Amino acid sequence: MKAELISVGTELLLGEIVDTNASWIASRLPRIGLDIYHKSVVGDNLERVVDTIERALSRSDVVIMTGGLGPTEDDLTREAIAEALGEEMFVDPDMERALRAFFAARGVDFAESNVKQAKLIPSASALANPRGTAPGWFVEKNRAEGDRYIIAMPGVPAEMYRMWENEVAPRLREMTSEVLITRVLKTAAVSEAKIDEMLSPLLKSTNPSVGIYAKIDGVHARIGAKAANEEEARALIAPVEEKARRILGAAVWGADDETLEAVVGKMLRERGQTVATMESCTGGLLSSAITDVDGSSDYFKGGYVAYTAELKIALGVNRAIIDEHGVISSETAGEMARAAREVLSADYGVGVTGVVGSDSVEGKPPGTIHIAIHDGERAESITYTYNQGRVVNKRRAVNTSLFLLRRTLLAAGS
Amino acid sequence: MKAELISVGTELLLGEIVDTNASWIASRLPRIGLDIYHKSVVGDNLERVVDTIERALSRSDVVIMTGGLGPTEDDLTREAIAEALGEEMFVDPDMERALRAFFAARGVDFAESNVKQAKLIPSASALANPRGTAPGWFVEKNRAEGDRYIIAMPGVPAEMYRMWENEVAPRLREMTSEVLITRVLKTAAVSEAKIDEMLSPLLKSTNPSVGIYAKIDGVHARIGAKAANEEEARALIAPVEEKARRILGAAVWGADDETLEAVVGKMLRERGQTVATMESCTGGLLSSAITDVDGSSDYFKGGYVAYTAELKIALGVNRAIIDEHGVISSETAGEMARAAREVLSADYGVGVTGVVGSDSVEGKPPGTIHIAIHDGERAESITYTYNQGRVVNKRRAVNTSLFLLRRTLLAAGS
Repeated sequence: MKAELISVGTELLLGEIVDTNASWIASRLPRIGLDIYHKSVVGDNLERVVDTIERALSRSDVVIMTGGLGPTEDDLTREAIAEALGEEMFVDPDMERALRAFFAARGVDFAESNVKQAKLIPSASALANPRGTAPGWFVEKNRAEGDRYIIAMPGVPAEMYRMWENEVAPRLREMTSEVLITRVLKTAAVSEAKIDEMLSPLLKSTNPSVGIYAKIDGVHARIGAKAANEEEARALIAPVEEKARRILGAAVWGADDETLEAVVGKMLRERGQTVATMESCTGGLLSSAITDVDGSSDYFKGGYVAYTAELKIALGVNRAIIDEHGVISSETAGEMARAAREVLSADYGVGVTGVVGSDSVEGKPPGTIHIAIHDGERAESITYTYNQGRVVNKRRAVNTSLFLLRRTLLAAGS
Repeated sequence: MKAELISVGTELLLGEIVDTNASWIASRLPRIGLDIYHKSVVGDNLERVVDTIERALSRSDVVIMTGGLGPTEDDLTREAIAEALGEEMFVDPDMERALRAFFAARGVDFAESNVKQAKLIPSASALANPRGTAPGWFVEKNRAEGDRYIIAMPGVPAEMYRMWENEVAPRLREMTSEVLITRVLKTAAVSEAKIDEMLSPLLKSTNPSVGIYAKIDGVHARIGAKAANEEEARALIAPVEEKARRILGAAVWGADDETLEAVVGKMLRERGQTVATMESCTGGLLSSAITDVDGSSDYFKGGYVAYTAELKIALGVNRAIIDEHGVISSETAGEMARAAREVLSADYGVGVTGVVGSDSVEGKPPGTIHIAIHDGERAESITYTYNQGRVVNKRRAVNTSLFLLRRTLLAAGS
């Protein structure tokens, strides 16, 4: 079955908000067996929304809309669906009662304009929205082109996510005969071309299919399988995943939604070990990433952001090393790692120094990064130069630091 | 004139990449006098791209496309435009020569598939792309519906940005009679409702118009003016901006693309003063934000990420204060600010402590944040509770810290 997405809202159209809802939904359609060929954004204008819906109904079985369900005059998704289908809206008494109760429970006055959120058309049923005031619509309509479905959900992401997972996805899944399930293996420190070469025996397969994609946290290998249901698809994926993991070995650091910071955190927690950081060019972004993980206080001992040579020295970095090799050097990164580990009494210290801005420092070009991990006996380090602007440079240095820490932990054994 | 955006690419359609190009272009259309009513995303499928272009030509004067200009078989934006307009493509000898020279200069072998990037149709002229291999197309065509323009640009953001600014925007600007220029005033620490009330005398005006929007870095007041050219529009905005600034006073911390970290950095630099941080719950995100600004090493003395009570005490926080008030308290935040300032010899110290995760700490609910600034004599602090999940909680605490630092700097005078 073919699905199509329509995001309603002038703010989205004008680029004042990036439309993350559409990407979120699109990425979930394959696993419930829906194909997608079109996405569109339309402003808060009745005629144009109606026109966009009619166009979608002419070419897609399922039209999924977000936004335009609120109480204001600008919110006209319901009106547009009613007009596109030639149906009359009416106030549903049960929905109105529930809506008034929702406001009363929060001690908020009920403005009469809210009544429009209790409206339906004959071919629509309401989708519960316990996180907000606007229920969704699930419309089923037999038309000349065939059976058509329109799903309308709120634009507020938290409300939409819940409605999708609990109300919409299960109902749509019942209507489809085949699902596409994907499994993503995430790698680091190996080039896209090399991964492609290593996995070439698997790339010709069509079900499951295997694709290679370069991302900010490394190269991803995506295995996708089509089958009658999720279990069968996962059974097709399992042997291919096993082969891929055998080929790629330790280059694979995680799967699906896992992050490097969570993977490294889990390893430290399992071993009862700790880490501490001393950052220069990343300015605290590394410690911020490590502490983005719930429970990270169990293994993160603390961090220093030492932007100046003097502060590095005050924190225990050997002045002679800086004098001899410069601040932007793997030797200084190693000293920073050693000092962080010692001063903060951690099992591992991470040191990061480099040039993330647009000007050279000590004659080192922008994008030069030195990272070191100290385990108490020695420092392991990585050096690279890759300049894509300050923000990307910082993020890449953080990912590389976490990957190097993982490699050190693996080498140490559990 | 009406413009419409089409993003081409299966990865965009499937939600694997969020389409930031469309938002970027959309936000720049008003200032060159173009209205936008539709945005769409279509996969790498010739028939559907042709269909989407035909639809756009039927309702918009200017069709702006991104993506699908590369050398692979999947790249078919040129083919689709040619088919939609019923024109034949040909290889332009000058373009082919330039393309071969581009590869030669980089010492890269020229694959023959690249020749398609040197193709044109009779109604297209090429748009230079010095940052990549694929030139853009600027198509002018007189059709039954009227004069129509199709602009095709690469999907790689850095290539597209340059092509838009240097080649496309100036040409489109010449075709329009009126521009819409906006000026955004950014405020913090005042509610949306309060800003709305304060600016109510200005909200009825239509040219310039004034709108109020809540954003992650505070409430924005947007002044928009239409005029024959940018200068006239700015002349309309100036007196309204002056009135708004008089009404809002110190709540306005910046305008347009300015960030709080850049504004605070500029104030410190102008005064020759410095700042140091001690963070707990924000885990280094505050120091990372401060050091996102080029040249921040001039005024940022360094930072500590002290996740544990022991480390806070080791760094100079008074143990008695923690014992008496708990780690999650404004008193401890004040001590952290004082200690950071003293240990790092800065003019100002910032301390942040709170609960960003989903579990209560010391009986304090998630979203509880205490921030303090110490200036050497006393600590100024802010406390609030607002829980929107770990990542947003951290970002909000960072913004509030920077706003409080700005307020302290303002109170101190320049």
